Amino acid sequence: MINAHIIIIGDELLDGTIADMHVQIMSKWLKELGVHLKNVTFARDHESTLLTTIKNVWTSSHITILTGGLGPTKDDITKQIIGNLFNLPLKKNDLAEKIVQEHYQRFDKEWSKETSGYHLIPEGVQPLSNSCGLAPGLSYQSDQKILLAAPGVPRELYAMMEEEFSPLIKKKFIKELKKNYSFVIRTHSIAEEKIFFDLEPKLWEKLKSYGRVSSLPQSSGVDIRVTLNERPDPGALVELKSLFEKSSIIKNIWQWGDLSLPEYLLKKAREKKLTISCAESCTGGLASSMLTDVAGCSDVFMGSAVTYSYPSKTKILGVSEEMLKQHGAVSEAVVTQMIKGSLDAYDSDLAISFSGIAGPGGATKEKPVGTVAIAVGTKDNIQSGLYYFKGNRTLLKHRFAMKGLFNLLNFINHETFK
Amino acid sequence: MINAHIIIIGDELLDGTIADMHVQIMSKWLKELGVHLKNVTFARDHESTLLTTIKNVWTSSHITILTGGLGPTKDDITKQIIGNLFNLPLKKNDLAEKIVQEHYQRFDKEWSKETSGYHLIPEGVQPLSNSCGLAPGLSYQSDQKILLAAPGVPRELYAMMEEEFSPLIKKKFIKELKKNYSFVIRTHSIAEEKIFFDLEPKLWEKLKSYGRVSSLPQSSGVDIRVTLNERPDPGALVELKSLFEKSSIIKNIWQWGDLSLPEYLLKKAREKKLTISCAESCTGGLASSMLTDVAGCSDVFMGSAVTYSYPSKTKILGVSEEMLKQHGAVSEAVVTQMIKGSLDAYDSDLAISFSGIAGPGGATKEKPVGTVAIAVGTKDNIQSGLYYFKGNRTLLKHRFAMKGLFNLLNFINHETFK
Repeated sequence: MINAHIIIIGDELLDGTIADMHVQIMSKWLKELGVHLKNVTFARDHESTLLTTIKNVWTSSHITILTGGLGPTKDDITKQIIGNLFNLPLKKNDLAEKIVQEHYQRFDKEWSKETSGYHLIPEGVQPLSNSCGLAPGLSYQSDQKILLAAPGVPRELYAMMEEEFSPLIKKKFIKELKKNYSFVIRTHSIAEEKIFFDLEPKLWEKLKSYGRVSSLPQSSGVDIRVTLNERPDPGALVELKSLFEKSSIIKNIWQWGDLSLPEYLLKKAREKKLTISCAESCTGGLASSMLTDVAGCSDVFMGSAVTYSYPSKTKILGVSEEMLKQHGAVSEAVVTQMIKGSLDAYDSDLAISFSGIAGPGGATKEKPVGTVAIAVGTKDNIQSGLYYFKGNRTLLKHRFAMKGLFNLLNFINHETFK
Repeated sequence: MINAHIIIIGDELLDGTIADMHVQIMSKWLKELGVHLKNVTFARDHESTLLTTIKNVWTSSHITILTGGLGPTKDDITKQIIGNLFNLPLKKNDLAEKIVQEHYQRFDKEWSKETSGYHLIPEGVQPLSNSCGLAPGLSYQSDQKILLAAPGVPRELYAMMEEEFSPLIKKKFIKELKKNYSFVIRTHSIAEEKIFFDLEPKLWEKLKSYGRVSSLPQSSGVDIRVTLNERPDPGALVELKSLFEKSSIIKNIWQWGDLSLPEYLLKKAREKKLTISCAESCTGGLASSMLTDVAGCSDVFMGSAVTYSYPSKTKILGVSEEMLKQHGAVSEAVVTQMIKGSLDAYDSDLAISFSGIAGPGGATKEKPVGTVAIAVGTKDNIQSGLYYFKGNRTLLKHRFAMKGLFNLLNFINHETFK
C-alpha cells in the first residue's frame, strides 16, 4: 500500500503559540484517497535538523508532504531545503512567475521580484497554483516517490490538497491506492478491562480474523474498531455484528458506526422528528458550537441561550432569583428551570441545560472545580443530575458538553414522545 | 539547552478519528519548564516501526516523552517496546502492583492480575502514579537522558505531566533548564511582503541582533516574534519597541504582546468597564465559546443568544419578520437588529452579531458559501459589514468568529463611550 508521511513545519506549533488544525483534516483526506498515513512530524524551521528530517522521511515514504515555510520571509526555508536535499539550485521558473503574477492580480496587487522570491524554485521542481493565497506550492517526483509542499495557512493548504495534490497522487499511484473499510462499535459505561478480560476474553482474537483490531477509550466510552482486510461482503458484516449481539456487552453499545456524538444525536432526533435547543452557562456555547459543526443541523437545532450572568438566566430563561439564591446557579433546580426556559424561548421539543464550574475560580467547599449540573427533557419530562469531572478549563468545558449530549441521546433513545 | 521530543502513539490520530488535543498543551508545559521542544511525532501502534521511531528519538534527545499505548488491550504495546529497546524483560514490580491496587480502590473496583498486566513492567523502569486513571505511567533514566511515558487519555496525561513528569525533569536537569523570553507584536491588514520588503527592508536584520526572528501569518494578521537570547533588560525592550514605533507599520499593530484575540479583547473591555454579549447565527456559539475559554471572563461576558431558527431570531432578539423576508437573514439590516436584541436581552454595553453561510448548503447566487454579515455596537452606535471568506464549514465558522471579535476590538479601541 502507498504510504505517506506529513511534516508540519513551524516553530509556532512547538511553542504552543497556536493549536494544530491540520492533522485531522489531512488524515481524513489521505484515508479517502486510499493512502496509508504512516507518521506526522511537527518540526521547527531550523535548517540543518529540518533537512535531516525531510531526508529520512523521503527515504522511507512513497509520499512526503510538507506544510509551511513557503512564505516570503527569512524563516521560510522549505524551498532552500528541498534544493539542498536533491542538489538542485534555485532558479527562475517561468511557470512559477506566471502563477505568481496571476495570484497577485487576483488580490489586485502587483508582484515585483524584489518583494518576494516566489519565481525562484529548485530546478526540476514543479510549481503548483495556490487558489487562496500568494505563495505557489511545489511538487518533485522520482520513479517511485513524490514530494508535495504547500503553505501552512489553513485555507491555502486545504484548497491545494484538493486541487493540486489529489490529482498528482491519483495519477502517479492510481493502481496502488487502496481504501480501508472499518467496522466500528461505540460503547459507554464499561471499561476496556471489563470488556476484553472479564466478559469477552475471546473477542479480540475472533475480531482479529477480520482485520486489525483497536480499542480506544474516549470521553463517551470505549470504541472498538476493526480495520477490515478487504471490502467487506454483507455476510462478513452480519457475522461481525452477531459477535456483539450474542455478547453481554450488547447493552453498552450506543452506536453501530463511527459518527461523532453530535452527528449521531442529530440523526436520532431527526428520525423522531424532534427539535433541540440548549441553555448553557459553564459550557459557554461549546455544546451549541459542537452541534452546529455538523452540516445540515438546522432542521433539528433551533439555538442556544448562553446565559453567563445571573440576570440573563432570569430574563431570558425565566430562572427565578429565589432559586438562584437558595440553590446556587450550579444546581439541579436551576438547570431544570433552564430547560423550561429554553423550550419556551426556542419552541423546541427537547432541551439540554448546563450549569457548572469550569474553573480555575468559582469553586466552593461543596462544589469543587469540575462540578456540573446537567438536565435534559421535554415540557412534561425533565431529568437532571449532578456530575464531577477532572481537568483544566477547556477540557472540563468539553467533558461537560459531551456528558450533556450523551444524556440527551439516552433520553431520545429511551423515552416516548407524543 | 535541554531538548525534548514527544511521540504521540495511536492509530486514531492518523486515521482522522479524533483530533489531537495534546500538542499545544504539552508545548506550553515544556516551555514553562524551560525545556526546548524539538519535535513532535504522531506514530501508529505498529511494533517494529514504533521501536525504530522511539530508538531514534532516544538517541537524539535529552527527554523522550511517550503518550498512549499503556492500556490493558493487545494494541497497547508501549511497555513491550520499551523493554525491547533497552533489553529489559517484563517483570512483576511490587511498587507497580501497589500503585495499581490504589488506583482500582479509588474507583471502587478490585484489581486482579488476570484482567490487566499493569503490575508487569520492564526491569529497571520505574512505575508512576496516575491520579486520574488506572494504568501507571513509566520513567526510565540513563546518565544524560530520561524517558517518560503516560496514557493518552487527556485528563490522565495532563495530571501525570504536572504531578510526576515535572518533578522528575526538574530534579534531573535543574541547572540546565532555561526559560525563553519573547517579544511579540501582532499586526493586522498588512501582508508579510509589504512589511519586510516594501516598508521595512532592514527590520529583520535589526531584530535579529536581539534573538531569533519569526513571522507568522494568522487569521488576525501577521505576528512578528523575537525569541530573545537572554532575559531582557528593560532597556532592550524599549529599544525593540522603538524600532516599531518609528516604523510606518505602527498603525497596523493591534497588540504589543501575545495574548489570544479573545484574551486581549476581554482585557480591553475590562479596562473600559464595558460588558459584552453576542447574538450568533452561523457561528453557532463558537464566538461565545472562544470568549468563555478565557478564565475569569464572567465580569465582562454576559452571554450569547445563539438563534439558528428564524422564529428564535424574532422571539429572543426582536428581529422583525419583514426584515428577514425583505433582506434575508444574512444581511446588515438583520445583524443590526440582532445587536439591539442582544443588548436588550443581556443588558450589556456592547454586542456583536453574526449571520452568514458556513455551508456546504444554504448558498444563493448573490450570497455564496463564506458570506457573513457582522455588526458590533452599542445602543447609540452600530457598525455593520458584509464579508466573504473561503474554507470548509468549521474553518469558516472560525474565520467568521475571529473577524467579528476583531471588529469589536477595533470598536472598543476607537469609539468613545459615555
